[in-house]
Amino acid sequence: MEQEKQNPLTPLSEVGEFGLIEKIRANVVNTAPQTIFGIGDDAAVLDSKGQKTLISTDCLVEGIHFDLSYVPMKHLGYKAVVVNLSDIFAMNAKPAQILVTLAASSRYTLEAIDELYEGIFAACQAYGVDLVGGDTSSIPKGLVLSITVLGYADEASVVYRNGARLNDIICVSGDLGGAYAGLQLLEREKRIFMENSAVQPDLTGFDYILERQLKPEARKDVVDLFARLGIKPTAMIDVSDGLASEINHICKESACGARIFDERIPVDPQSVILLEEMKVNPTLAALNGGEDYELLFTISPTDYEKIKAEKGISFIGFITPPEFGVKLETRDGIQHNLEAKGWNAFGKE
Amino acid sequence: MEQEKQNPLTPLSEVGEFGLIEKIRANVVNTAPQTIFGIGDDAAVLDSKGQKTLISTDCLVEGIHFDLSYVPMKHLGYKAVVVNLSDIFAMNAKPAQILVTLAASSRYTLEAIDELYEGIFAACQAYGVDLVGGDTSSIPKGLVLSITVLGYADEASVVYRNGARLNDIICVSGDLGGAYAGLQLLEREKRIFMENSAVQPDLTGFDYILERQLKPEARKDVVDLFARLGIKPTAMIDVSDGLASEINHICKESACGARIFDERIPVDPQSVILLEEMKVNPTLAALNGGEDYELLFTISPTDYEKIKAEKGISFIGFITPPEFGVKLETRDGIQHNLEAKGWNAFGKE
Repeated sequence: MEQEKQNPLTPLSEVGEFGLIEKIRANVVNTAPQTIFGIGDDAAVLDSKGQKTLISTDCLVEGIHFDLSYVPMKHLGYKAVVVNLSDIFAMNAKPAQILVTLAASSRYTLEAIDELYEGIFAACQAYGVDLVGGDTSSIPKGLVLSITVLGYADEASVVYRNGARLNDIICVSGDLGGAYAGLQLLEREKRIFMENSAVQPDLTGFDYILERQLKPEARKDVVDLFARLGIKPTAMIDVSDGLASEINHICKESACGARIFDERIPVDPQSVILLEEMKVNPTLAALNGGEDYELLFTISPTDYEKIKAEKGISFIGFITPPEFGVKLETRDGIQHNLEAKGWNAFGKE
Repeated sequence: MEQEKQNPLTPLSEVGEFGLIEKIRANVVNTAPQTIFGIGDDAAVLDSKGQKTLISTDCLVEGIHFDLSYVPMKHLGYKAVVVNLSDIFAMNAKPAQILVTLAASSRYTLEAIDELYEGIFAACQAYGVDLVGGDTSSIPKGLVLSITVLGYADEASVVYRNGARLNDIICVSGDLGGAYAGLQLLEREKRIFMENSAVQPDLTGFDYILERQLKPEARKDVVDLFARLGIKPTAMIDVSDGLASEINHICKESACGARIFDERIPVDPQSVILLEEMKVNPTLAALNGGEDYELLFTISPTDYEKIKAEKGISFIGFITPPEFGVKLETRDGIQHNLEAKGWNAFGKE
């Protein structure tokens, strides 16, 4: 309380919309060659430099996608940018600009919003992306963060979901289920804390899965790897809703089936330890957990030689004829249908 | 109730996010030449055809920007698109694509969301714009609609806020204050209805101002007019927050002052009648009411001859040296400072 009296927090209503925009604008330094004019007019002006423009948008809602009781504002800002960039990398393109729309209730202070933008700017800097526009608004309750991202690529290098062909090899970067494991851990410690606030959360030894949940990264390096190896995946998607959902998207758009081998799905040991402790099957976490932001892609068998030695890329199955369906094969040879459960944002499982 | 039993409404949770996206996607027909690939992948793919890309985003929040007790969902959808298109026209460019992010609580039915998208599609069709992406999410309470718009123009024809020069003529399209008058009328009738629900709202004779509030249009025709007349405004902005705020934006960005003549500000007679009935000064409604989505622009005096005969364009003042300030001159010669009050979205006046 003493501290608060000395450094009183600033209600958003005191700065106003123009004040907040001016404050954000003052922190912006545009570096992408495609940015001609950023914040400060009715629209930003961009130059695609003869490439194609890729655009995507993702929205994070308090109480649905994040819980501020354990997500610091700065991490929220960082993650909100990263999940958007991930969509551009999933097209084998490079992101260059974002627009940020923030709707926050008057419960938020200027200091909290500053922290959020610190995270946003940190992600912009890490990935070489410019903040070129957005909108700010009040909202009766909670916080909504909606980000639009623009990226660029030559037309010939854009990878869609619909290009997977029979016998293509299904690959995934990194490991899966970690973000879900991190979320389970945070929620468990929150419950314990709610029951007895004297018990401090014990998160030691779980840095990796916490980071997977709180500060994920987008796989720019994998897109760079494709360029270096001279590989163009036949289809690609980022793993935001879980492997089951994403492979179904690829198969639906490419009109094919898929055979995935359970033991090939990469799950980090830290995730396995925590999930088993919590009686969750690690494969299920990889299939349905989501938020891993890895890249799931298919390559032509002729490209396999080029990429097979790469660490951090797992070969988890094959593209089949559509009649086969989308199936997970366990070590004992039993095949299970993989359904696109995904994330039902409207609450019904 | 009988009606409801026969045609039960569908909770959003029953369709789920993928179901809703599929439903929207099924209604989309892309027509803009710049759209290569729309909804259905991680990102949309666009071709700027050698032009520059303009991008802007605007967010409408229930309880802040609209009141569903008198705004039909279809109108809301239409208006949300139009206010975004207006930003692209304000750059002297042509909009071609939008992305729509919708966050709605489970209180909304699929039928209500369908109506909203009907309005969105109606605006897309009216302005030749494609819906190429977006996001849908649940939200604990209310409705948030965030739209991003993309437009295109040759670099040489883009008009910024910062190009106004000494002695340029300040012009505005259409009339101002009408949307504010319409809002006052709707709120008055809502109050009367809340006090006594037997009294039906009396809105006769006020079609024009109601339409200004509920179904505004963006001034594509004015941008077409500039092309036809061979005029490039020196600066331009759309009137979303009221004339006072917008002229201040132009003066700030162009480092100049402005002298506006009160009697030159165009206000429709219907607005005047209603506003005077409600004891509101019509000039104040034009200055601070907002939501008119007209275009405020400056032209070089050498272009005046070309445009002076055009109906629906008012010449309201001149650009002055910055030391003059931004002033409104009344008929009696008194000069008042015009401050950029604008719209404080965070609630403090």
